[in-house]
Amino acid sequence: MIKSKPFLLENELPWEPLNEGVSRQILGYNVELMMVKVSFEAGAIGALHSHPHSQTSYVASGRFEVEIDGLKRILAAGDGYFIAPDLVHGVKCLEAGVLVDSFSPIREDFLE
Amino acid sequence: MIKSKPFLLENELPWEPLNEGVSRQILGYNVELMMVKVSFEAGAIGALHSHPHSQTSYVASGRFEVEIDGLKRILAAGDGYFIAPDLVHGVKCLEAGVLVDSFSPIREDFLE
Repeated sequence: MIKSKPFLLENELPWEPLNEGVSRQILGYNVELMMVKVSFEAGAIGALHSHPHSQTSYVASGRFEVEIDGLKRILAAGDGYFIAPDLVHGVKCLEAGVLVDSFSPIREDFLE
Repeated sequence: MIKSKPFLLENELPWEPLNEGVSRQILGYNVELMMVKVSFEAGAIGALHSHPHSQTSYVASGRFEVEIDGLKRILAAGDGYFIAPDLVHGVKCLEAGVLVDSFSPIREDFLE
């Protein structure tokens, strides 16, 4: 069965560069749940996209303009958002920071 | 269908007191996924327990001794952990902070 280790230390896990100014660190997962940390530099973009997975996200630090299904809102550390399956969403980073995304089921594409 | 609003602002959502020094703020959810913020004062305890839900957690701030299935580790901001279904787990808060827990499926007991 596919699953992560129980303890996930920031200094022991790899960072994967994505598009410019964006990198990802995979935290815990099994087949039904996956948590992922995504770091953004100021001005970096998470382009509009959609997926059949449910997603919840937590703003751990920084400030982001978040767009979900055509609605935009500025969110800061301590805020969160929820994306129902197949809704188009994206972010623009206003101040450098970290988002913590959780998905159900697992994003198998992230492990390839 | 049960689900949260898309945008979840810390200042607009209620905090629910749990046991001493621990309070909870529910963030995004639908039937298959739920994200919850839990705030701990130093010395506060998340007692050992288990549930059939998969869980991943992110240490947003503070320092915690985390026990999973008999193994203990000290985790700090930026670290995370994964709890497979039915594993006994708990935390002891060493320095005041916040955990962000995600569950699959939803913790319906949290909405009652």
